[in-house]
Amino acid sequence: MKKKLTLKTIAKHFNVSIATISKALKNSYDISEERRKEVQKFAKENGYKPNIFALGLKRNKTNTIGLILPNILNLYFAKVFSGVEKIANEHGYNVVICISNDNYQKEVDATNMFVNGTVDGFIVSLAEETQKLQNYSHFKNAIKQDVGLVMIDRVTDEVNCDKVIVNDAKAAYDATEYFISNQRKNIALVSIISHTSVGKLRIQGYKKALENNNILVDENLIIRVGKNDDLETLLKVVLGSRKVDALLCLEETATISTLEILKKLHYKIPENISLIGFTNGELLQHVTPKVTSVSQHGVFMGEQAMRFLAAKLKEIEEDKVSSSKTKIVKTTILERESTIKL
Amino acid sequence: MKKKLTLKTIAKHFNVSIATISKALKNSYDISEERRKEVQKFAKENGYKPNIFALGLKRNKTNTIGLILPNILNLYFAKVFSGVEKIANEHGYNVVICISNDNYQKEVDATNMFVNGTVDGFIVSLAEETQKLQNYSHFKNAIKQDVGLVMIDRVTDEVNCDKVIVNDAKAAYDATEYFISNQRKNIALVSIISHTSVGKLRIQGYKKALENNNILVDENLIIRVGKNDDLETLLKVVLGSRKVDALLCLEETATISTLEILKKLHYKIPENISLIGFTNGELLQHVTPKVTSVSQHGVFMGEQAMRFLAAKLKEIEEDKVSSSKTKIVKTTILERESTIKL
Repeated sequence: MKKKLTLKTIAKHFNVSIATISKALKNSYDISEERRKEVQKFAKENGYKPNIFALGLKRNKTNTIGLILPNILNLYFAKVFSGVEKIANEHGYNVVICISNDNYQKEVDATNMFVNGTVDGFIVSLAEETQKLQNYSHFKNAIKQDVGLVMIDRVTDEVNCDKVIVNDAKAAYDATEYFISNQRKNIALVSIISHTSVGKLRIQGYKKALENNNILVDENLIIRVGKNDDLETLLKVVLGSRKVDALLCLEETATISTLEILKKLHYKIPENISLIGFTNGELLQHVTPKVTSVSQHGVFMGEQAMRFLAAKLKEIEEDKVSSSKTKIVKTTILERESTIKL
Repeated sequence: MKKKLTLKTIAKHFNVSIATISKALKNSYDISEERRKEVQKFAKENGYKPNIFALGLKRNKTNTIGLILPNILNLYFAKVFSGVEKIANEHGYNVVICISNDNYQKEVDATNMFVNGTVDGFIVSLAEETQKLQNYSHFKNAIKQDVGLVMIDRVTDEVNCDKVIVNDAKAAYDATEYFISNQRKNIALVSIISHTSVGKLRIQGYKKALENNNILVDENLIIRVGKNDDLETLLKVVLGSRKVDALLCLEETATISTLEILKKLHYKIPENISLIGFTNGELLQHVTPKVTSVSQHGVFMGEQAMRFLAAKLKEIEEDKVSSSKTKIVKTTILERESTIKL
């Protein structure tokens, strides 16, 4: 692909600031007529987009921001969207969403469409496959092209951008400690997101809490559910061969499935088994028993990500890009009916 | 806004087919050199987009389609999305989503962005406010600009395009009949979507079923919940002043709220009150008791809408646009624990 001509490139060519180029293209009287003419001539000859001339704006001033979510059926991400949208509206941005379905190529396609002038910047929560492949060049390319980028929830250290995360290790640590302080010691874990950064950190936190309480980590109690695995079979094997009095589920869908399987197998919740699920979407508060959950405050995280993005877009506009920031949002355990509190 | 130059306009100017113009712009040897030159000159002078020249494609060949949904928290729409995406992938299209939040202006903004070259065509389920205002000129404009348009679920007769709907009147008729055939005669209705086409049709179907079974329609049993109304208060008034042994809820969120209020008020479901909810998202099958629901087959509807759109885009490409079609998808009553079957 031929490199697109940006204000930055033109500014570099003339060895002046982006603001000067922007003003020259807008025909501002702040700039000498001579300079205006030479900049406009250069831009025209090199195919700088004429409609953007007309608007007098930078290449990417679409007043739209993008959001790439791993899936749409998870209501946690719906909450993230509401937060993003609220702040986007305040700043006069529309929001478009792409769903990666946890697929690397779909994430790349969405990113390329966004970079290709559809949005000013975008917020992404990484696809599971991308985190598995560890290939992030599409994002690095976006940043190079002056497209604003913020990562949320599922992030990577390999891309230098603003991030909004929860302390996943700490959140799982706290949930495990909650079980232990309420006399549960045989704590199993269910993860359908073992390949994500988030899933790995939560397992770390769970193990650390056990270790700090002198409970031996039993790898057999960590149920990693792959795409082709049957959760019910895996659960039956563990529950049939080991004493389990508590279950920590790392994500909402798996929590609901686990709850239904436990009920089907006639376990009493919380009497026989206590249950805590991650991410407080809509489902966990409507099932019976209502499930105690680790709230990640999705709306707040979305708001914060959009605040970061709006600030970044302003910085890009003014060519004063500051170093990247990471906001860690504290999680809360929302106590409901699926756990016993002593 | 200055009218965008389209292949159609150019074709009209030269009084030839769009295909001829397209080929002339692509510099195809099918077209005489003279014609090619005059078309290219005209297009250039009138600002026909040069990047599209380069691609040799029609203005709207983005390989992306748009989807405007009224909200993201309703899992029925998430199912529609999965269906759309599946067929979009088969045809090599990416999907971008905009959420109107049932707001007219947001729907207009999304439509304008889509028309402005972001997508080849789009699928929309109308915002409640749009149906209230009955202003559909943004969609008519899209069609004029050769952008493919398909409406799904919430549609209007005022726009001439392909549509995928359920027979909402029939679906509500069937649900009401289901109650009656199982000895329920005091049937109340809860609607939070009274202003949508869908909501109105469902109320019609409900009334017709009562009338056909010689049950007097009592307007007091029709609970229309507005944005600022409190469902619990409205329900208490009706349940306190009238005998009610069945409740038909026209939408998923209201069904869940109604269920929780009934449980709080110590009604036994289905012994005291039977409950049927519309749209079989995720929630209704996970609550206790599991709620009998009218399944609209969201995935299938999404698939059908995308099939219509893909066909329409092909027609637009070939300049052979056929008349509009409407597909009516049959609903099914999924019997669960919230109703008694005699």
